[in-house]
Amino acid sequence: MRLLSRTAVIMTLISAATLLTSLRPKTQKVIFFGDSITAQGARPGGYIERIKQALTQKSMANDYDLIGAGIGGNKVYDLYLRMDDDVMAQNPDIVFIYIGVNDVWHKATSGTGTDIDKFEKFYTAIINKLLDKHIRVILVTPAVIGEKNDFTNQQDGDLNAYSQVIRNLAQKFHCGLVDLREIFHNYELKNNPGNKESGILTQDRVHLNDNGNQLVADKMLEALLAK
Amino acid sequence: MRLLSRTAVIMTLISAATLLTSLRPKTQKVIFFGDSITAQGARPGGYIERIKQALTQKSMANDYDLIGAGIGGNKVYDLYLRMDDDVMAQNPDIVFIYIGVNDVWHKATSGTGTDIDKFEKFYTAIINKLLDKHIRVILVTPAVIGEKNDFTNQQDGDLNAYSQVIRNLAQKFHCGLVDLREIFHNYELKNNPGNKESGILTQDRVHLNDNGNQLVADKMLEALLAK
Amino acid sequence: MRLLSRTAVIMTLISAATLLTSLRPKTQKVIFFGDSITAQGARPGGYIERIKQALTQKSMANDYDLIGAGIGGNKVYDLYLRMDDDVMAQNPDIVFIYIGVNDVWHKATSGTGTDIDKFEKFYTAIINKLLDKHIRVILVTPAVIGEKNDFTNQQDGDLNAYSQVIRNLAQKFHCGLVDLREIFHNYELKNNPGNKESGILTQDRVHLNDNGNQLVADKMLEALLAK
Amino acid sequence: MRLLSRTAVIMTLISAATLLTSLRPKTQKVIFFGDSITAQGARPGGYIERIKQALTQKSMANDYDLIGAGIGGNKVYDLYLRMDDDVMAQNPDIVFIYIGVNDVWHKATSGTGTDIDKFEKFYTAIINKLLDKHIRVILVTPAVIGEKNDFTNQQDGDLNAYSQVIRNLAQKFHCGLVDLREIFHNYELKNNPGNKESGILTQDRVHLNDNGNQLVADKMLEALLAK
Repeated sequence: MRLLSRTAVIMTLISAATLLTSLRPKTQKVIFFGDSITAQGARPGGYIERIKQALTQKSMANDYDLIGAGIGGNKVYDLYLRMDDDVMAQNPDIVFIYIGVNDVWHKATSGTGTDIDKFEKFYTAIINKLLDKHIRVILVTPAVIGEKNDFTNQQDGDLNAYSQVIRNLAQKFHCGLVDLREIFHNYELKNNPGNKESGILTQDRVHLNDNGNQLVADKMLEALLAK
Repeated sequence: MRLLSRTAVIMTLISAATLLTSLRPKTQKVIFFGDSITAQGARPGGYIERIKQALTQKSMANDYDLIGAGIGGNKVYDLYLRMDDDVMAQNPDIVFIYIGVNDVWHKATSGTGTDIDKFEKFYTAIINKLLDKHIRVILVTPAVIGEKNDFTNQQDGDLNAYSQVIRNLAQKFHCGLVDLREIFHNYELKNNPGNKESGILTQDRVHLNDNGNQLVADKMLEALLAK
Repeated sequence: MRLLSRTAVIMTLISAATLLTSLRPKTQKVIFFGDSITAQGARPGGYIERIKQALTQKSMANDYDLIGAGIGGNKVYDLYLRMDDDVMAQNPDIVFIYIGVNDVWHKATSGTGTDIDKFEKFYTAIINKLLDKHIRVILVTPAVIGEKNDFTNQQDGDLNAYSQVIRNLAQKFHCGLVDLREIFHNYELKNNPGNKESGILTQDRVHLNDNGNQLVADKMLEALLAK
Repeated sequence: MRLLSRTAVIMTLISAATLLTSLRPKTQKVIFFGDSITAQGARPGGYIERIKQALTQKSMANDYDLIGAGIGGNKVYDLYLRMDDDVMAQNPDIVFIYIGVNDVWHKATSGTGTDIDKFEKFYTAIINKLLDKHIRVILVTPAVIGEKNDFTNQQDGDLNAYSQVIRNLAQKFHCGLVDLREIFHNYELKNNPGNKESGILTQDRVHLNDNGNQLVADKMLEALLAK
């Protein structure tokens, strides 16, 4: 009887543990898929680290496993080429796609940007592959190349156009959207009265400073929890 | 006495003629100095021809001699190179400088645009040469490369920036200004609800259609007579 | 016994048919995978049609099924994006990869060329996918952008460099190679004494004229039969 | 008579002085007109300083006054814009024009290179202005952007083409020529067996290292003294 009761106790404990486990939501794997802005976002002080801290403060640290998958210089077709290895192989639950700056910027700096129709094609192919696996997809528009707030930055026309492509894709595929292009523009209108090129949300016109990383973290967290 | 009176009559007539001549203002030579938009502006239906017609209707046809000096593909430094031959040699009273589209556009189409600091340098050199000869100078901002009205045309950022350079130069050198960039933008906001790329004021995103030529003619005439 | 003998006859007939079928070589499906040069190559007078004619003359028309899969404006990453649909789905035996002109050319004409390291990466990915399915792969270097034979065509440096990448890949992966870059250069040295930009092997510096299509057909056929 | 003889003595002395002055050749003012390569050429170890040292060794230091007039980032039209201030105002006897690298290079790095027909036009205008003042003009072809010796550097095609324009202008206007493009190519064929991108004659594919400065100094001195 001692033995039986021991077994019973163990069984009861297992049941309780199982119950607790099932009550606690499964940890969701979140991949941030992008370029150098995301590569830097995974470093201390970066936006991904700031999202982790915010989740810890909300006692939600175990709910999400945040993984940075940013590589410097990446354009949309680079994401497509490496998505099997760097995204699908990890079986994520949620993927943020944060791409577009280099697709626009490299037109001027090395003649190797991406035509807007090709940008849409590759972006669509990435979304389709993710949705096929029932992965939740959140799109992010490219924020800025230059922080002047009156549309006098060289790439403003293209950034507006490529962001519009992304907004349309988010709507078409019912994906989440973090519209950094609009968020940054509104922020600059309020907080960049001197119409500076950098130093408000970026260090160098493109890569985020502390303020920029915090703003991106806030907005991405909002999108992550919005469901 | 007959002789005297005859002489007197002749003298009186001459005086009257002289008086009339001095009352009629001297014909002012006006040169439109620019690129293909101005080359087309000198053709039938072009903006220069339309200004002539408007002057004729106002019985001012003899007040101004309008001369087109536009050459396709020209950028600001091309104007500088040919200004001795094509402008100074004609001793104009007034010069419209209408340049900038190719300085921006050729960055994307052949890698041979003009850096914004060089644009300002050559533009300044042209203004200085004209003002040295006490020629009245009227600057014109580049209107559009693409007619979409939400700043999603590829070159919108640069066109806004280069136009700002021109506005600043107009102020600095106390020149006249026809701010086509702003005029066209406001027109597109009102008259391009479908956000089309062309067909509102241009045939092909850049070169003026009838509406465009008329709008430019109206605004240039206004600037010409504003004094 | 009648039944048995009937079966025997049928069996014998089937054996004979099988034998005949095995004696006649299986028709090999050959895909020409490329850009506008290949799209034009599939039209009457194009290089693919000329290969068909040559095979017919050799009584080999049934040995090969030649399929054009060229799309205008394609670069290496476009081939990668569409290779599942346009190549793998057809189960080819042999694939010619003829790409590279736009990867180089679009740098100058629209700022949307392909960096050389990305070119190699995508090219490698395409080869790997084909070799995985035991498809015979034959690489083709980009011939010309401009026919001047003294390396004064604007893109000569890049075409030489990208062709070298392809030659190295052919060696590394033991693929066939049709080195059009070298073949055309040698042809121009002999047959373009006036150092013309076009009209020798191309219509317009890039797309093949009759001579060009014939030269490409001859060399591709040679590579196809070389085994 | 004393007075007369005193005058006679003075006259004689003046005559002697004049004679001596006329025997010693007048110091020739030489301007090196160019871009950053020439700006660096005027620094210690630079090619202009090396020419000075060579002249000193030949006891010809007083025969030539060498002046560097190089500004970083300059293209042919920048030389034209500043030639009145930086060249003509100094009344030089000899001018070396060493330009072209940025005209080609900036196509790829910022979309602001110079079309080859415009390059020729501005170059011609510079030559004409100098020859009008009977200044001896020596043209210099742009050496390298990348030191690989098999014409696989990205800009090789353009550098060859722009150099050909300069060679033709030298012939047309009977100017001197230092054909660095050819000189460097021959040097690389012999001394760059590893086909390296830099480190043979340049530090960074474009700007001269010690070897490069010495080679340029040797060839420019040769051209300077060749008369």
